[in-house]
Amino acid sequence: MLQQTVFLLALVAQGLTLENGLLRTPPMGWLAWERFRCNIHCDEDPKNCISERLFMEMADRLAQDGWRDLGYVYLNIDDCWIGGRDDKGRLVPDSKRFPRGIAFLADYVTPPLGLRGSLILSLEPLWYILDPQAHSLGLKLGIYEDMGNMTCMGFPGTTLDTVELDAQTFAGWKVDMLKMDGCFSTSEERAQGYPKMSAALNATGRPIAFSCSWPAYEGGLPPKVNYTLLANICNLWRNYDDIQDSWNSVLSILDWFVKHQDILQPLAGPGHWNDPDMLLIGNFGLSFEESRSQMALWTMLAAPLFMSTDLRTITPQNMDILQNPLMIKINQDPLGIQGRRIYEDEYQIEVYKRPLTNEASALVFFSRRTDMPYHFHTSLAKLNFPRAKVYDAQNIFSGEIISGLWSENNFTVVINPSGVVMWYLNPVKNMDISETMYQL
Amino acid sequence: MLQQTVFLLALVAQGLTLENGLLRTPPMGWLAWERFRCNIHCDEDPKNCISERLFMEMADRLAQDGWRDLGYVYLNIDDCWIGGRDDKGRLVPDSKRFPRGIAFLADYVTPPLGLRGSLILSLEPLWYILDPQAHSLGLKLGIYEDMGNMTCMGFPGTTLDTVELDAQTFAGWKVDMLKMDGCFSTSEERAQGYPKMSAALNATGRPIAFSCSWPAYEGGLPPKVNYTLLANICNLWRNYDDIQDSWNSVLSILDWFVKHQDILQPLAGPGHWNDPDMLLIGNFGLSFEESRSQMALWTMLAAPLFMSTDLRTITPQNMDILQNPLMIKINQDPLGIQGRRIYEDEYQIEVYKRPLTNEASALVFFSRRTDMPYHFHTSLAKLNFPRAKVYDAQNIFSGEIISGLWSENNFTVVINPSGVVMWYLNPVKNMDISETMYQL
Repeated sequence: MLQQTVFLLALVAQGLTLENGLLRTPPMGWLAWERFRCNIHCDEDPKNCISERLFMEMADRLAQDGWRDLGYVYLNIDDCWIGGRDDKGRLVPDSKRFPRGIAFLADYVTPPLGLRGSLILSLEPLWYILDPQAHSLGLKLGIYEDMGNMTCMGFPGTTLDTVELDAQTFAGWKVDMLKMDGCFSTSEERAQGYPKMSAALNATGRPIAFSCSWPAYEGGLPPKVNYTLLANICNLWRNYDDIQDSWNSVLSILDWFVKHQDILQPLAGPGHWNDPDMLLIGNFGLSFEESRSQMALWTMLAAPLFMSTDLRTITPQNMDILQNPLMIKINQDPLGIQGRRIYEDEYQIEVYKRPLTNEASALVFFSRRTDMPYHFHTSLAKLNFPRAKVYDAQNIFSGEIISGLWSENNFTVVINPSGVVMWYLNPVKNMDISETMYQL
Repeated sequence: MLQQTVFLLALVAQGLTLENGLLRTPPMGWLAWERFRCNIHCDEDPKNCISERLFMEMADRLAQDGWRDLGYVYLNIDDCWIGGRDDKGRLVPDSKRFPRGIAFLADYVTPPLGLRGSLILSLEPLWYILDPQAHSLGLKLGIYEDMGNMTCMGFPGTTLDTVELDAQTFAGWKVDMLKMDGCFSTSEERAQGYPKMSAALNATGRPIAFSCSWPAYEGGLPPKVNYTLLANICNLWRNYDDIQDSWNSVLSILDWFVKHQDILQPLAGPGHWNDPDMLLIGNFGLSFEESRSQMALWTMLAAPLFMSTDLRTITPQNMDILQNPLMIKINQDPLGIQGRRIYEDEYQIEVYKRPLTNEASALVFFSRRTDMPYHFHTSLAKLNFPRAKVYDAQNIFSGEIISGLWSENNFTVVINPSGVVMWYLNPVKNMDISETMYQL
């Protein structure tokens, strides 16, 4: 352990820091894994197998169905894309499933300007034309590798001697993000490999966001995990277990992040984020209430918003949850401060708070009950908001605004089982404490 | 134990058997508990508190929204309706929440013929006009008590000395079902009280279906539970824990019923049913797939179909699950044979089979996976269907029919995580084994 720590400190001292300027707010996009896993059976299941078709169809949906314009710009490949290495040792994709290669896929979301010029002029917002990193469809392509002998599903991994080559390969393909998993390696190999890959990505000259699964392989906590180092070499990191398509899985991840919030909450900030893993919304295991809850709680955690669902068939109800503009505004708040659980009680009610720019804040009232809607009585003062302040509170889901909520006012929120009520709170004035108090 | 057994046998010998001729198929209807619990706060929550308003509004929905005509005829009160006992010791409802009494509520679903004559002639099917037990709205009223000093929520219970009086009170109110809970009593009191109440109900002359929570208070299994006796004194019985609004709860109940299916499956039959508790569909904790799964699995268990949801606000999607005609036909199959799990594998796939009249059967393919849709390859022969038979298979949810499915044909069903595929299988002919085999 001591040896390892000394080694890591040495790396930091060598200036292997991630200075790519990326992800000043949590990344948003789409990641294949949770919904499509390692489905390589294109003969049996051509629509859903891991193949260029799947990514091209998702790219089309991201660009055409409002996702990209709300910020969901990353289209990220996960495991099971690799075919092997060529005679020069360079990674190549599976030739049957990605016959035109990864560079083609990057090009698909970055066609020559002329080809899509009219589309760009007519449909696409100015911001990404001006963003030199953006592809013409306004999307960015992410890819996956594993720091180890094999990926988790058994495809060729990145070993210490191929780090630079693989970084150059990804940059050559015009990839914008790399998720680096940690299967089939030792702690020592990971301790060398992740900083080395970070430096290698920087050395390519192409800004490539770096997502590190490293801490999840070391238990996710100090002293085994050196988060000071991580914040210097990674833009985001998976701290904990993979999410599965069930409410149990969401709760187990939330529980872990809350249990360790004193450690984890201060780590997040512009350019470096805790990643509780993908959103399940649109898949099979979450109810409507549970879907809203994951979206709200992940937003409070300043989490990356990586959807992993079939955007070709998603229902309007689930789109509404994922495309809620005020929710996204909170998730993407420029301060980048992760929220905390500030209240829990014996009735299985919890309250989360996240500070936002301009002294605003977000509140989530969450019920873990499994019986019926719960009438929760509280006040902002009881939740340790400053006294003698007045707020406008906007309900994130209903849009309803409560104007002039004094911090001393008692109010009641009705929280459904496994559901949330979420508020955006904007301070409007200070109140003379002698003014008449009124009840909502 | 020996003493208790001797006592129970003595009761049976005395002929205290339930000969009410009721519930030849599992009861269907609506029960207040899971969704509305013991909400007695009518000032704060008038729409949802346990009150005559709630039951009248649900009665209207049952009658007007298609439920009743599909068989959902029981409107059942649960705990928290009792106000106390009058000076003659008779139970009276809470006077604020049930100001017009329980007889009024029974009358609301049984108004004088003249008052609703035109409605009856125009809208209501002949069957319940001809059924002398039916109220004019076509509904039946159920009520709740507890064999013990108090109900589970602390309202006055039925003690051994009030059994006859309470039975007469319920009959006088024209109640059609009694759910008898078992809180706040000893095993000995329950062993005396349940048979005594069964006899007392019979003695009233009014057919009143009898739902006994007794086994759930004794661990649900022989030798502590004497199911031979139960089948003689109760029309249905709760074997296991209360359901809660979560998929975990559904799975824990299913697990228990499957683990003990060799004991439980033979117990069910016309007039006497295992009751795994209410349907959660329409509430907060189940996803779409999970909702379909509970409906399908409960149907395979020949379970009572008691909804417990707000019928005033239920979505069309959830109505479709609960109102599926072929599903209800299977649940209500006149043979009344409970189904069994006939297959499970290491991929978390299970198959359930229920025999139906005319040599038909129902199959449920169930996935406990939490990743992605699973392609399950099998044949009817592999599921121990007779060889050399040909079936028509109808998908219960899609309506799609596969004609001419030979038991030797390999087929694939795609099962969503936490979801089911459900088939109604009708044998159409025997096949000469030499006929050409074809693949689906």
